[in-house]
Amino acid sequence: MKTVGINGYGTIGKRVADAVTAQDDMKIVGVTKRTPNFEAKRAVELGYDIYMSSPDRENLFEEADIPVKGTIDDLYDKVDIVVDCTPGGIGVKNMESYKKAGVKGIFQGGEKHGKIGKSFNSFANFNDSVGEDYVRVVSCNTTGLCRTLNPIKELCGIKKVRAVMVRRGADPGQVNKGPINSIVPNPPTVPSHHGPDVQTVMYGLNITTMAILVPTTLMHQHNLMVELESDVTIDDVIDTFEKTPRVLLVDASRGLGSTAEIMEFAKDLGRPRGDLFEIAVWRESLNIVNNELYYMQAVHQESDVVPENVDAIRAMLELETNPEKSIARTNKNMDIIK
Amino acid sequence: MKTVGINGYGTIGKRVADAVTAQDDMKIVGVTKRTPNFEAKRAVELGYDIYMSSPDRENLFEEADIPVKGTIDDLYDKVDIVVDCTPGGIGVKNMESYKKAGVKGIFQGGEKHGKIGKSFNSFANFNDSVGEDYVRVVSCNTTGLCRTLNPIKELCGIKKVRAVMVRRGADPGQVNKGPINSIVPNPPTVPSHHGPDVQTVMYGLNITTMAILVPTTLMHQHNLMVELESDVTIDDVIDTFEKTPRVLLVDASRGLGSTAEIMEFAKDLGRPRGDLFEIAVWRESLNIVNNELYYMQAVHQESDVVPENVDAIRAMLELETNPEKSIARTNKNMDIIK
Repeated sequence: MKTVGINGYGTIGKRVADAVTAQDDMKIVGVTKRTPNFEAKRAVELGYDIYMSSPDRENLFEEADIPVKGTIDDLYDKVDIVVDCTPGGIGVKNMESYKKAGVKGIFQGGEKHGKIGKSFNSFANFNDSVGEDYVRVVSCNTTGLCRTLNPIKELCGIKKVRAVMVRRGADPGQVNKGPINSIVPNPPTVPSHHGPDVQTVMYGLNITTMAILVPTTLMHQHNLMVELESDVTIDDVIDTFEKTPRVLLVDASRGLGSTAEIMEFAKDLGRPRGDLFEIAVWRESLNIVNNELYYMQAVHQESDVVPENVDAIRAMLELETNPEKSIARTNKNMDIIK
Repeated sequence: MKTVGINGYGTIGKRVADAVTAQDDMKIVGVTKRTPNFEAKRAVELGYDIYMSSPDRENLFEEADIPVKGTIDDLYDKVDIVVDCTPGGIGVKNMESYKKAGVKGIFQGGEKHGKIGKSFNSFANFNDSVGEDYVRVVSCNTTGLCRTLNPIKELCGIKKVRAVMVRRGADPGQVNKGPINSIVPNPPTVPSHHGPDVQTVMYGLNITTMAILVPTTLMHQHNLMVELESDVTIDDVIDTFEKTPRVLLVDASRGLGSTAEIMEFAKDLGRPRGDLFEIAVWRESLNIVNNELYYMQAVHQESDVVPENVDAIRAMLELETNPEKSIARTNKNMDIIK
């Protein structure tokens, strides 16, 4: 049983911890917390050992009556790999300490690809991370794009992708972020960084992206225009998406016409925290005109990268070298529909 | 002095009334109201005569102490043209009564093009409405697209347009509409109706559109990808937009990075109701890659069609047959910057 530590038990960290715990070939040894907040308390209730990321704050944890097992360095001694879920830009600063401790490290999409050197998506380039020491799982938006673009590329080739990403302004728990009542080009320059980020895992893909922020917390929404290399029908695309793991076709006509209704559906599925690990593609939006495929999809920004983190652990620790097998195992253990 | 009546003194109607009043070759004779609400009271204070669109509701106006000059039929007798600003789908039902009364009629974008027979945009096809009896001013989104696409077409020709329209969920005063915290593909099918609507005034333009609703009330936002016929530089495009009336280049770097800040700017300009009649194009978003022009723009849905309504009156009543002259005259009288 391989051992995993979570550095940063926040939005992504707590979800990866639960997803790892659900697997049968890896386990969580401990998680780090800087602040003894409700998440730290809940981590203890769930049975996770807590290690302090700032050793000088022990008194804060004592005051909050939250037991700690040691410092972050103590955790490094006990694990094969650390999943770094600290805020963007902090992860790369931790890399030196991982190297010094001799542990492998997974970083999140908030880190720059160039600083880590290798990026990961379960479907696009799993094999390139087998046995690697430091790997970055691409961001929620990039993961969403790869999940649906990769099978289309395999089906019929892609000449060019144009995508407009309508991004949630903040996560549900973030009370200090906006916008409240506004649309914000973010970045206001075109193309956005998302296209190049996709290219870190789908090498050489011709893709241009534009991105804006809007006043919602639930999901990102993507509008895709994909020029295809060879002729296919919409039925071919539907067949492909129906067979693709972690992609769900949803029908607006069946009450799933918005991101709010899709998240309500995820709650009804009994998912932990109401998460939707899959990318939801609106069936009605699929259309091919002049060999160009159009579709709309929704991405649950808090959770879609979680199964990818599990697959990355498996690849880097060489628990599995076949991506399909890792994806199937992760999915089965996380109750992902397909 | 030509005489104008407004049928439906709501969001668009009250703005067109003020814009007509600001002109020197036309005047408002009266406006219709169905309900004696705050807008009716304010119309009286502004000096507009009120005509009841439902004659059987006289007692409601009496109770509200709002004087009425007569019924809608009395208004028809006094005007050369009616600007129909009733809710979408109602306008076309009024056409018969306009015909019977022998008055010309302008309809808004909520009516179907096919039912009216002719659509209008000041820049794209002014001349086709000269002397016409019944004309539809295209919707706020379509007007926004035409304002910037028409000058690009004239500059260098357009091969194909792809546009993703991020639409405001409701107007600021609409308390019963959503979404509050969701992104809604609307329509969930692709392409949306906006592309064909542009083609009712920019004949033969190759355009595909996708549209979604988001939880904001201030403005629509458009993401445009325009394949160009001939080579131009970004400076050529900037020069063109700087010369184009009713188009404003705005800089995110100067504090105009969102629809909220743009509307704040309009208020600071002292505009009536804080309206922005111009289309705001983010300067930073302009980019040409492989002969494809990318840009982002914002559209004030409550007011951008208002100057177009004035121009349509002028064309239909043959007060002016030169579009540039009508546009300049309308703008000068409405204090539109250029």
